[in-house]
Formats: sequence, C-alpha cells, structure tokens
Amino acid sequence: MQALDESRRYRETVGPAILASFAELLSIPNTTAMPGGIDRNAIWIRDELMRRGARAAVTQIPGAAPLVFGRVDGEPGGPTVGYYAHFDGQPADELDWTDPPFSPTLRDGPLEEGGAVVPWPGPGDPVDPDWRIYARGSADDRGAVAALLGALDARQGRRPRASLVFLLEGEEEVGSPHLPEYLRLLADRLRADAWVICDGPVHHSGRPQVVFGVRGMADVEITVYGPAADLHSGHYGNWAPNPAALLTDLVAGMRDEHGVPTIDGVEVPDPSPEALAAAAEVPGPGDLGFPAPEGPGLWERNLRPLLNVRGIRSGDVGEASRNVVPREATASLDLRLPAPMSPVAVVEAVRSHVAARGFHLVDGPPDTATRAAHRRIARVSGRPAYPGVRTEPGDPAVAGILEAVEAAAGEAPVLVPSFGSSVPLHHFEALGAPAVIVPMANHDNHQHGPDENLKVAGLWYGIDLIAALLG
Amino acid sequence: MQALDESRRYRETVGPAILASFAELLSIPNTTAMPGGIDRNAIWIRDELMRRGARAAVTQIPGAAPLVFGRVDGEPGGPTVGYYAHFDGQPADELDWTDPPFSPTLRDGPLEEGGAVVPWPGPGDPVDPDWRIYARGSADDRGAVAALLGALDARQGRRPRASLVFLLEGEEEVGSPHLPEYLRLLADRLRADAWVICDGPVHHSGRPQVVFGVRGMADVEITVYGPAADLHSGHYGNWAPNPAALLTDLVAGMRDEHGVPTIDGVEVPDPSPEALAAAAEVPGPGDLGFPAPEGPGLWERNLRPLLNVRGIRSGDVGEASRNVVPREATASLDLRLPAPMSPVAVVEAVRSHVAARGFHLVDGPPDTATRAAHRRIARVSGRPAYPGVRTEPGDPAVAGILEAVEAAAGEAPVLVPSFGSSVPLHHFEALGAPAVIVPMANHDNHQHGPDENLKVAGLWYGIDLIAALLG
Repeated sequence: MQALDESRRYRETVGPAILASFAELLSIPNTTAMPGGIDRNAIWIRDELMRRGARAAVTQIPGAAPLVFGRVDGEPGGPTVGYYAHFDGQPADELDWTDPPFSPTLRDGPLEEGGAVVPWPGPGDPVDPDWRIYARGSADDRGAVAALLGALDARQGRRPRASLVFLLEGEEEVGSPHLPEYLRLLADRLRADAWVICDGPVHHSGRPQVVFGVRGMADVEITVYGPAADLHSGHYGNWAPNPAALLTDLVAGMRDEHGVPTIDGVEVPDPSPEALAAAAEVPGPGDLGFPAPEGPGLWERNLRPLLNVRGIRSGDVGEASRNVVPREATASLDLRLPAPMSPVAVVEAVRSHVAARGFHLVDGPPDTATRAAHRRIARVSGRPAYPGVRTEPGDPAVAGILEAVEAAAGEAPVLVPSFGSSVPLHHFEALGAPAVIVPMANHDNHQHGPDENLKVAGLWYGIDLIAALLG
Repeated sequence: MQALDESRRYRETVGPAILASFAELLSIPNTTAMPGGIDRNAIWIRDELMRRGARAAVTQIPGAAPLVFGRVDGEPGGPTVGYYAHFDGQPADELDWTDPPFSPTLRDGPLEEGGAVVPWPGPGDPVDPDWRIYARGSADDRGAVAALLGALDARQGRRPRASLVFLLEGEEEVGSPHLPEYLRLLADRLRADAWVICDGPVHHSGRPQVVFGVRGMADVEITVYGPAADLHSGHYGNWAPNPAALLTDLVAGMRDEHGVPTIDGVEVPDPSPEALAAAAEVPGPGDLGFPAPEGPGLWERNLRPLLNVRGIRSGDVGEASRNVVPREATASLDLRLPAPMSPVAVVEAVRSHVAARGFHLVDGPPDTATRAAHRRIARVSGRPAYPGVRTEPGDPAVAGILEAVEAAAGEAPVLVPSFGSSVPLHHFEALGAPAVIVPMANHDNHQHGPDENLKVAGLWYGIDLIAALLG
C-alpha cells in the first residue's frame, strides 16, 4: 500500500515534529471543569486541520460544547470513511499525578516499570516507539486527533483516494448529551460508507482490535413496600408482607444462572452464526481471580443480554440487624441489551412482569389507603438509556476498514463481535452507515485515572491506520 | 371460690394500702444501669414477702443480678404452683417521661386520653380500677410482684390449699443470662406441678389471656462472595459470579410464600388438632394497615416455623448505584421455630442447604487461592438461641390455672396456643413441669417506652389470680 509506505517514511523523518504538535495540543486543558479549555481545544484543532488542507469548522449548539467537523476530499467516486474522536477528557486532580496533567511529559517506559523522563526530541533525533506520552487526554482521546493530523501531514497535500468526513466531539466524557442533535444537524455533511470510532484501548494482549457492536443499556430500580412501620418479626412475620422476601423472589425470577433476563415478554435474540464464530476467536478475559463459568466463553455471553444486580438493600445486616419485617426493599438492576432489543420495551416489560406477579404499581411511597387495599405494592422506575448496535463482521461496508487495520498494524486484528459494555454507537447508526470501534491506545493507558499515557507506537499505529484508510 | 371472695373483700378494704406498698417498690430504681437499684429491689421484695409469712431468700451467682425465690406452704398433699416474675426494668430516659419514672404517679386515666394526676388515696378512700399507676416497671413487671404481695396480704396468714414456689428475677430485660444456672441450682426448691409466667400484656381486646407456648429462635447470616473487587457489569456481568443474584436465588429458595422455611432436611411439624382449634378461636391481630393474607389466620400461622428476612445488603441502590458486579452480598435471617424443632439442627441444615447448592463454605472473607478455586463461596454464621415450648391446651397440669384465671377475670380467657415471638420458656420446661404465660398488664401499658403504666384493674386481677391459685 503506497499511502501506508509514505506515511511510515514520513513519520520516521519528522516524528519529533509530530510529537511537538501533539504536546502543544495536550498543553491545553481539556476538562469541562476548566472553562475555556474545551473552546481552545476546538479552535486549535480546527486551525491545525485547515493548515493541513482539510475543510474544517467549529460549530456550537447553545449550551453544548463546541464540535469540530469537516472533510478531506478524495478522488471523485471513491469511498467515504467517517472518523469520530473526542478531545475532552475526564477531570484530572493534579495532586494525584506524577507529572502535571497538562504539562505533557515524555518517558522511556511506563511509570509502573520505572519509566524515566526523556527530553522531547529535536529535529532529526530518533524516536523510540516504546516511549510514553503522559498527559490528560493523551490516550482518551486526543491521540486520535493527533493521528488524524499526522496522517494529513504525511499526505503533504496530495489528494487521497478515499474521502474522509470527521466529527470531533467536546463532551464525550459527560455522556455526549448533544451528539444526537449535532448528528441530526450535520447529517448531510457527514455522509459516509462506514464510520471508524477511534476510542478506547486495544486488546489486552496488545493486538489491535476492531469492535463490531455494543450492547444497549437500561437501568431499572424496583422498590417493594411492606408494612408502614417495621413490624416485630416474631409476632407478625408470618402475617405481614415481607418486602425483602418478595423482592428476592422477584429478582430470582428475572434472570437465569448466566445472568440472561427471564422477563415476561422479553425475547432473547440469537446471535448470528458469524458473530458466534467471531466470538469464539476472541481471546478470553484473562485471569480475574475466579474460575470461569462452565459453558460458553465471555465473548459469546456478551452477545446475549444481561440483567445485572448491582445493588439490593432492605433492613439491616450484621450488628445492626433487628428482628423486624422491614418496611421496604430496593433492588437496582442494569440491563445490557444487544441489538435489536429495545431498552424502552424491556423497561416496560419489567413493569408488566412485576404487575403480573400481583404487585400494585405505584410511583412513590404508597399512602394509607393504597397500603390498606394491596398486599403487594411496588415501584418500578426505569431509565432506558439507548439501544445496542451490531455490525456483522462480514458487512462489505467495513471490509476496507479491516484491510486498513491489518495493513497498519502488520497483524490481523482481534475481531470483537460485541463489547459487553455500552457505548451510544446507535447515534452513528442513525446516519445510515455501519460503525466500528477501532482503538489505538495501549491497554495500560490509565484512562480516566491519574498518569494517563499513550505509547508512541499507538500514535504511529493511528497515523498509519488513517493513512491506510485514505489510501 | 372462697379464697377469691376473701381476696376481693380484702382489697376493697385496704386498696389504698396495697397501692402505697406498690408505690414504695416503684420508687426504687430498677434498671441495671443504676447500680444498687436492683439489689435494693431484691432486698425490699424479700423483706415484704417474709413479713407476709412466705419463706423467701435472696441469692446471687457471682456476676449475676440477685434473685428472690421462696415458697408459701399450702396444705400437705395439695398441688404446687410455680410463679415467675421479674423486678428489673428497661432503661428509662427521664427527659422522655411525663412524670419521673421513679416517682410513681397516679392518674385517673391514660395520658393519651388526658388522664389527670390524682392524689394517692388514704385509708378508707375509694380506689377507681380505671386509675393508672405511672412508673418504670409498673406493668413490666413489678406489678406481678405487687400482686403476689397483695394476694399474701389477703390470706392474712391463713394457710392456703395449694403451695406456691416463686422465682423473681432481676435481669430479664438483659436477656436472662443466668436464669438457666439459677434454675439448675434451685431445681430442688422449685418443684411445681405447673408454672405461671406473669409477664407481658393481656390480649388487645382487653380480655385476659393464657399463652401455652412460644417459638424458639435462631439467627442466620449468609454472606456470598463475588469478585475480589467490584467488576464492570458491562464487560464482566455475564462472566463473574454475581453475589447479589446468587444470594437472592438462595433466599428465594429457603422460604415459601407464607414465610415457612423450605430448607433441605428441615421438617416442619404439624400443629396438634387441639392447638389448631385453639388458634382458630383467638381473635386476629386487628388492622395493621395492610390486607390479611389469604388462607390460615395469624395464630394458626404462628404455630408453624418462620424464616424472616430481616435485612439484605449488596452494592448500592438509588443515586449511589454503579454499574458493577458487587463484591459481596449479605442476608440476615431470623428463624422462629415451634417445639420440637431444634435451633441447633436448623442452623446446621442451613449450612448444608447452602453447601448443597454448590457453595464452598468459609469462615470469613476468602483468600486469593480460595477465590481462584471456587466460583460459589459463602459464609454461613448461625446463632441458635433457644428452642420453643408448647404446652397443649388440654394438659391436665394446667387445668387448675385456667380455672383460676377464669374465676379471677370473671370471663373466659383468650387461649393462645403459641406466641409467634420467642421467650426462653424452655428453661422452665427443663424443671419438668409445663409453663404458661398469664399476663396481667393492660395492653396499652407502654412497656419498654416512656410513660409505662399499669391499670389498677390489672393489679386487682393479678391479686385475685394468685388468690385463686392458692385457693
């Protein structure tokens, strides 16, 4: 691939300049808690993109963080790739960091292994790909912005074969509250054959990975109400409705031993044979300190829905326990739902499931008349967050992306049919094109914590990946 | 009944003197928190019993509160009744009381209905049975001591037909820790055909009651251990053992919808037809603010065992909830066990029940090697408190007690085959004679709280009851 070879030659020559430009970006605070920083990031990025021949603009919905978007025109009739990254970061408490989070620091290895500070290289100096760049947002996710700039540098103004549209967000770390609106507003300008979401770490084995789907998400909280006041369990334990027991019965009936929901009216879709085959190829999660369950592997399980019990509370345990029928019991559940399951429908199904077990549903603590009329009273509050997305590994729209990844990485990527966790990829699906996640950060990047860092090799990989996509 | 008539005539004549004597006793603080008070109570009671012709002594095991015991000799060959009461009281926070707890105050009705202070009556003054005596320990349980003294007064030294042995305890409110030892030591001196335990309130309808049994008790706490650290529920929710879900499954499988335990190897004894028939006659619990369950009434249910969920805790709910597989989950259970169920055997059965569901049992948080070896790990800690007791309503040894109660009260008592709650009656059973609970205090006596009070009519009933037992 000619474009890739050019990219590699280029960064071997001007690696120090690429790092210097990245360090300039990383010096600009990028947390929403520091007013002005996000704006300065957006303007710096737009200017640098324009200097490199891209058409780029900053736009801003009132109340939202600014967004950088634009395009690099390729040959007429060629494919168009979408590219997403974000330039905002998690809050950084300077006291917890070894190096100041917005004074980018180069080290010759990870801090955990004693990585020492190295001076930023000057023109012509060699750059070691094992070096790490320590700064907030180096890995999550301004490295993905730097990779775009580096790839454009490598083209030195030559028109690429493929076009690229890009969207660089400034409020991903606070839940992308305006992303759907931005995408609706810019839909015409963001037409692409497929999207590359460049965020997160590569596989923990160090291999590159491409993620074809994510599960959607819903939260449900169920509160069962018992007697209006704690009742003596000896006198009334066989008589009063025990909310803790009613709730354990409910929760026990809502999931199987693998965590798959067994909620009335909720159908669990079968994963496609392609997805199952891909899941079987993904290396397992490594040693988490407990024996693996019998049966399917982690990645096959993550193709199915999950009802997770994240909390349950009623009465007291330990020294504080008293011999009472408690007044109420609450369970907090999070549901992970693969496409095409509807979080809205699942939350509604939980309500029906509970009602079908004889519970009178209320919106808050029941009044005296309601308590007098019903033995089983529950509140079900649900928050359907967003649906899942699944792109089939064989989708022809992403075949070119897979080729680019393999070419850039020099090895076949781990193909993850679906993350178990949830990312609002469905906003991109709404644009009518498949989206895949292609991370470039090292697995040990300390994302969200102190001492966040990006391995230089990851940045090189990102530059090569975009060069290959353009080529 | 001649003895009863004499008792009634006597207390009509010298009611004011009986109240004065009772007030003298109630003036002596009787909480274990006030050093010396318990000792002074014991000595005062012994002296007053001896002044009335009883043989009485104070004894004290090192570290225990003193105990008053003794006997009133009846005709040779006559029956012997055992009589238990206690003279210690719950702590009393003076600030919460309307009248000082150890300055006995007479009122012409309950405080809730505006009962006003009345002067203590002098010799020859009339005594209204609706008056209330406000003081700590008036109802729970020094009224039962005053009733014994009043009944002896009424005999004016004449030898009764029946003998009476008595045991007056000084540490019931702290769990009777030395009662078994006292009973063993004094077994020879406390031989009786049947025991009357005079404590607690009469039926809430105001009718006298006789209670033929109590359930035994055991506590069990089950902790299920999950991953060593909270794990991301999206990534690992279908993979890691979820302790909250494992625990809800366990708890849901350990009781039926009526609260009756369904623990492997635990047999639920059928109540006798006599007990069932008696239970059907006991008026229900009144309106507790929720609809009664379908099926058997409260008192029939209380003849069966109960597994009560008094608390369950894992992770967080509400605003604090996080998308994790929690590290551990704990349920606190109390079990109420009718005779002849063994609390020791039930606690052991819970351990076996949990182990049979694939849990590796540990004594505390598991170490790394244990976690690595077992997916299901639980700690089961149990405290078998004491067994239940049941005297059949038709037991001939208690027939005389029932006659005395009916004669003293002037109406048939409510016959409760078993309290749902637990009282360590089994210590008396160990003496080889049946024991029944015969309360004399009004139902609204504010036992354990501020403004504890005894209705004068209750004291008169107690005096008449003992007179009838002696007669």
